[in-house]
Amino acid sequence: AILEEIETLLASPPSAAPAPLAGKHALVTAGPTHEPIDPVRYIANRSSGRQGFAIAGALARLGAKVTLVTGPVSLDTPRGVTRIDVQTAREMEAAVNEALPADVAILVAAVADWRAESSPRKIKKGETGGPPELQLVENPDILAGLGGSDRRPGLLIGFAAETDKVVGHARAKLDRKGCDWIVANDVSGDVMGGTENSIHLITAAGVESWDQMPKSEVARKLAERIAETLA
Amino acid sequence: AILEEIETLLASPPSAAPAPLAGKHALVTAGPTHEPIDPVRYIANRSSGRQGFAIAGALARLGAKVTLVTGPVSLDTPRGVTRIDVQTAREMEAAVNEALPADVAILVAAVADWRAESSPRKIKKGETGGPPELQLVENPDILAGLGGSDRRPGLLIGFAAETDKVVGHARAKLDRKGCDWIVANDVSGDVMGGTENSIHLITAAGVESWDQMPKSEVARKLAERIAETLA
Repeated sequence: AILEEIETLLASPPSAAPAPLAGKHALVTAGPTHEPIDPVRYIANRSSGRQGFAIAGALARLGAKVTLVTGPVSLDTPRGVTRIDVQTAREMEAAVNEALPADVAILVAAVADWRAESSPRKIKKGETGGPPELQLVENPDILAGLGGSDRRPGLLIGFAAETDKVVGHARAKLDRKGCDWIVANDVSGDVMGGTENSIHLITAAGVESWDQMPKSEVARKLAERIAETLA
Repeated sequence: AILEEIETLLASPPSAAPAPLAGKHALVTAGPTHEPIDPVRYIANRSSGRQGFAIAGALARLGAKVTLVTGPVSLDTPRGVTRIDVQTAREMEAAVNEALPADVAILVAAVADWRAESSPRKIKKGETGGPPELQLVENPDILAGLGGSDRRPGLLIGFAAETDKVVGHARAKLDRKGCDWIVANDVSGDVMGGTENSIHLITAAGVESWDQMPKSEVARKLAERIAETLA
């Protein structure tokens, strides 16, 4: 009987929390992608997945049904979030399309722009008489794909990690990709893998620069803004 | 008083364990290296670091003083092991040379053979009119460097991860690098990141093929062989 009560408590949502996103489906991507060069080597982006996981958790706490598509990270799944693990950009694109329709999509993942033409066996050092030429090909652009899709989520949010001209690059990205907001973060410092983030929120209305704050706090503020916008 | 007794117990070596490697210095490398392409992207090798960490731990349990130079992994340091964290092949080479002299070196790390000519700022998609050409340059060969060094450890052991012609490639590596043993593992299956390993031990005397067994067991057997050889 005690066990049953505990189970009931765990199953029920936190009683006092507001649920402004109840009935909404939020799609979040997070983490890096790993693009194989051969069975041993790969190209990757630096991304801990922390910011995306925090956003997924914050949206779930506001009552949303959350699908989190994530590349390889070592993080626990936030409570109440449905997690789908992928390795490559193409796998991530397929999982995102599979998860539609969504009311809001927040693409936080640091998707590799390029992949190598992958070799099925290990490239041996010396077999090419010097370093091999790595033939790179462009990966699908998941954000632009959603932006131009007839299944486009009503609110589409991209992330941009920039080392220079942060706001300028991010504003260009907003226009180019057909999304509603860009969250730009300045990664010229030691942000990636860290617990804090310094971001600019770029919308049609302009630019808001947020103070540096914990990633969990960025997530909470962003989830609240999403809830206001979808209300 | 109870606390003091516990502290004494924890501080003293396991009383019954033999210490055939007491007074010997063992140098172990483990994990992948990460070679930056730009501040966001990098090339890496798949390697969990598990096998190298297990070997470092097994050598410490036989009484050796162990220095473990490791690339980026998410593993706890084995008890009694001195750990040095590095990112790139060049940093690993410097740390290995710094740790000499050693009675035995076991180079388990999956060092990237090549690094990219790294860019100090993020390469923008589109700025090159298509995927960038990645100019690769050869990394230092840490094993061959030690093999030809006048500070060469008395027993020098390399690892070889191969997907095809496992023993043939490994035997060629033994000759080429000037080391004493090669531990060849067949990574055509699902070994990397897993907990088991299937290896061949290649020495001047010939080839021994070990049954597939847990990485901890490979480590224990290898540490015992090292102890016999250094006795």
